[in-house]
Amino acid sequence: MLFNYQIIDYKITKFPMPKSFHMSPEEFRRQGHAVVDWIADYHSRVESFPVLSRVQPGEIRSKLPANAPAHGEAFDQILGDIERVILPGITHWQSPNFYAYFPANASGPAILGDLVSSGLGVQGMLWSTSPACTELETHVLDWLVPMLGLPEKFLSTSSAGGGVIQDTASSASLCALLAARERTTQFASNRKGCDGRLVAYCSTQTHSSVEKAVKIAGMGSDNLRHVEVDRNFAMRPEALAYHVELDIKAALIPCFVCATVGTTSSNAIDPVREIGGICRDHSLWLHVDSAMSGTAALCPEFRFINDGVEFADSYTFNPHKWMFTNFDCNVFYVADRKHLIQTLSVLPEYLRNQATESGAVIDYRDWHIQLGRRFRALKLWFVIRHYGIEGLQHHIREHVRLAQQFAGWVRGDSRFELAAPARLNLVCFRLRAGDHSNQDHANQDQANQDQANQDQANQDQANQLLMDRLNGSGDLYLTHTKLDGKLTLRFCVGQTNTQARHVERAWQRIQQETGKLGNP
Amino acid sequence: MLFNYQIIDYKITKFPMPKSFHMSPEEFRRQGHAVVDWIADYHSRVESFPVLSRVQPGEIRSKLPANAPAHGEAFDQILGDIERVILPGITHWQSPNFYAYFPANASGPAILGDLVSSGLGVQGMLWSTSPACTELETHVLDWLVPMLGLPEKFLSTSSAGGGVIQDTASSASLCALLAARERTTQFASNRKGCDGRLVAYCSTQTHSSVEKAVKIAGMGSDNLRHVEVDRNFAMRPEALAYHVELDIKAALIPCFVCATVGTTSSNAIDPVREIGGICRDHSLWLHVDSAMSGTAALCPEFRFINDGVEFADSYTFNPHKWMFTNFDCNVFYVADRKHLIQTLSVLPEYLRNQATESGAVIDYRDWHIQLGRRFRALKLWFVIRHYGIEGLQHHIREHVRLAQQFAGWVRGDSRFELAAPARLNLVCFRLRAGDHSNQDHANQDQANQDQANQDQANQDQANQLLMDRLNGSGDLYLTHTKLDGKLTLRFCVGQTNTQARHVERAWQRIQQETGKLGNP
Repeated sequence: MLFNYQIIDYKITKFPMPKSFHMSPEEFRRQGHAVVDWIADYHSRVESFPVLSRVQPGEIRSKLPANAPAHGEAFDQILGDIERVILPGITHWQSPNFYAYFPANASGPAILGDLVSSGLGVQGMLWSTSPACTELETHVLDWLVPMLGLPEKFLSTSSAGGGVIQDTASSASLCALLAARERTTQFASNRKGCDGRLVAYCSTQTHSSVEKAVKIAGMGSDNLRHVEVDRNFAMRPEALAYHVELDIKAALIPCFVCATVGTTSSNAIDPVREIGGICRDHSLWLHVDSAMSGTAALCPEFRFINDGVEFADSYTFNPHKWMFTNFDCNVFYVADRKHLIQTLSVLPEYLRNQATESGAVIDYRDWHIQLGRRFRALKLWFVIRHYGIEGLQHHIREHVRLAQQFAGWVRGDSRFELAAPARLNLVCFRLRAGDHSNQDHANQDQANQDQANQDQANQDQANQLLMDRLNGSGDLYLTHTKLDGKLTLRFCVGQTNTQARHVERAWQRIQQETGKLGNP
Repeated sequence: MLFNYQIIDYKITKFPMPKSFHMSPEEFRRQGHAVVDWIADYHSRVESFPVLSRVQPGEIRSKLPANAPAHGEAFDQILGDIERVILPGITHWQSPNFYAYFPANASGPAILGDLVSSGLGVQGMLWSTSPACTELETHVLDWLVPMLGLPEKFLSTSSAGGGVIQDTASSASLCALLAARERTTQFASNRKGCDGRLVAYCSTQTHSSVEKAVKIAGMGSDNLRHVEVDRNFAMRPEALAYHVELDIKAALIPCFVCATVGTTSSNAIDPVREIGGICRDHSLWLHVDSAMSGTAALCPEFRFINDGVEFADSYTFNPHKWMFTNFDCNVFYVADRKHLIQTLSVLPEYLRNQATESGAVIDYRDWHIQLGRRFRALKLWFVIRHYGIEGLQHHIREHVRLAQQFAGWVRGDSRFELAAPARLNLVCFRLRAGDHSNQDHANQDQANQDQANQDQANQDQANQLLMDRLNGSGDLYLTHTKLDGKLTLRFCVGQTNTQARHVERAWQRIQQETGKLGNP
């Protein structure tokens, strides 16, 4: 049957030509160039800002109008407010003088890859909703397996494994925990809920996201064992074995172990091989969290960090930390994808499609918490292609070299002590305690104990003061942790543009402020 | 004590000037302009591509080299591969002929706001790690409360409420469920784990993310009641009350209800007011999911969708669906933030800081699953300022008008039927069944039943064929659902650039392909 188009044509003529408030492609081109120029200029002058923002709580809000504008504003004005309103409230993570936390480094190719992703604006929840989004992701994550010297079982082309990009290591660890929970209970927890008997294990140094995940997963933080660590802050495998056996005797059900390669506090490396043996003996899911340090394995000389990873059921690291790929980009591998997929899969009618039902494709929505997903593989692809393996290795080596140089300076200055081994790009150090703490405490009477406590408080106070003054100066930004109960400064060399001159200047500033500590 | 800088100076001179593989700001400026130009051109010619990608599984991967490049490649070559390799595998969500699923609409100001965010590259996990990231987010989410006519209790300036940007509604619903779980158990689930007695409620039409959340949270899908719906696919409150009372009698613990304003299948609107009364009577957490439709409340004439929202403990909608803000940007409000924060907060030493401990600031890391977070408020700020309330209202009204026009055409064509009320921008319709299905089935003998089943299968097949041919043509993309067990086509008008001519052309193409159905 043919339709009479004239009727339709008649109807269209009644439509008013709509007024449009959209930004036209030509306007986008003009303003886009302006934004790119602004970013290029920002990166050129980023060292001129104090690294840590100096605003007070509420200061940024006070500059913003109370209500949304009724009518649209000119783009120049909006961009101008980035300078006027936003920049004073920025802590400059892209400053080469940023040594705080772990880095969240960015780079030109990553920013531009992400821009292409924004421009395309596709959803990769299903293969069919943009096949390139899924296939590029699978492919680039397969590239990374040999690049990092990881076990072949994580390849999508292996019998059962594969990788997925998640937003953060927190989410990846949660997914690992959930897959472990379901593998252990044969998917009964998904149906009936948890029963308070599953137990998870990490160390006292494991990232807080694992405790958060244990709570989210309904397993309960009481059922998370924080296993003791050795003097290098690495998990003690015999302590893990002890806890597992104790729990089994108590009729609890051990199910998941998180080993960390490069802890947040001190970059400690858990003995994955020994932990893996215990996991194998007890059928525990072994998750390896190498969020920052994983990138180091790009360089063969640092691949000692992968020792024992062949025992892992899942592995995660963050290109958005140290691999020049803008946040968010976490990489998560599983040795057997079916547990993960079966744990997270729910297939309503409105998502059914031929490609999914053929079984020939990956639908990444079943690999993480969210349904919707951005085309994040583009930025990772851009980074790897722009730098090449050679370029990535060069800059990782340079960061490690600079951190090691810094650690050497700390060692050579009697006022300081290293608080943990510095094996890669994180140096934990602190001002030494005053003379009292060097006394013999063998005689632990009350007076000595009080003195020791007072010494410790003094030492912590001195280190806190040193950090506050350095950060307050705006010249650099570093953060702290506690190791052996002592306040410790963390100096992490990983920002994209950090060079020798920055690290050298940081050490000068640390020494200057240390020299002033006696004179408040 | 003063340090002898000469020693340091001596050491620096030994550093080699490092080779750099980074993209310089000047190179970024040049390539950034090229990427912006590429996106402007892509948006100008997006209608020239088939909306639904035509590649076969594996086709994109087969064009990619097996291994990562050892040496860096020229940026022109990388960008060229977007055209050559990626575009054929793109399903064009930014095409004005995209009517599938719910939209994920983008716009110029959103893309550029997100680009600024990439350029700044800050982490907003804590207020102190970039105060502007937190304060702009809080402020813009406060703007949205009156813009949408939502209850004032969701304002950050109210006694207990506030909003946060999440990645997706899936994550927001999970967080709501977790806060409900902990409020109900007085935080015992977080400590001891779940015990299989907590019950959650949604309707048979609720988005699959709620079932996924119930599994993730360790509550078990057996403890999720899919409450029956009325003929308009809205939850029946008396059925909800019935289930709640049955569960209480069975010594279970009702805790959470998800009401949907605009379901994914048919845009059904659950009766939030009546549901709210039941929740209040039984102290159940009421979460309102208005992921797509929530945006309609920008227009006062569509605020009927907010009826009863004052009962909600939490509310979520996605600017990344229908408010011209690139994915990901979900907005999540809670009436009492302390439950959410206490549920998700873990504070390790390395995140402690003065601002947090003062209690004067918001640390958004405690408001969601992840720790790290991108500066997503920028794109939302850019969108609201570029369009103004007037511009946003104009385009939302236009989308609804076009959808209503389309629904009118469906109503006027005897070959079709509307499958659900079309109140906003989603039209659910299908080809009517053949003559057999109009027979009187009062006499339900086997022959009649068989005939009815056969009729249904034929009808579904015809609708599937119509959809496949339309999607296969590349002229438009729409998806399906099942309503009353019947395959139903969904036509959602929400893509940023969809205008009258596109909807009219879509209706022409639907009629053309329908006319050809008799002639395979």
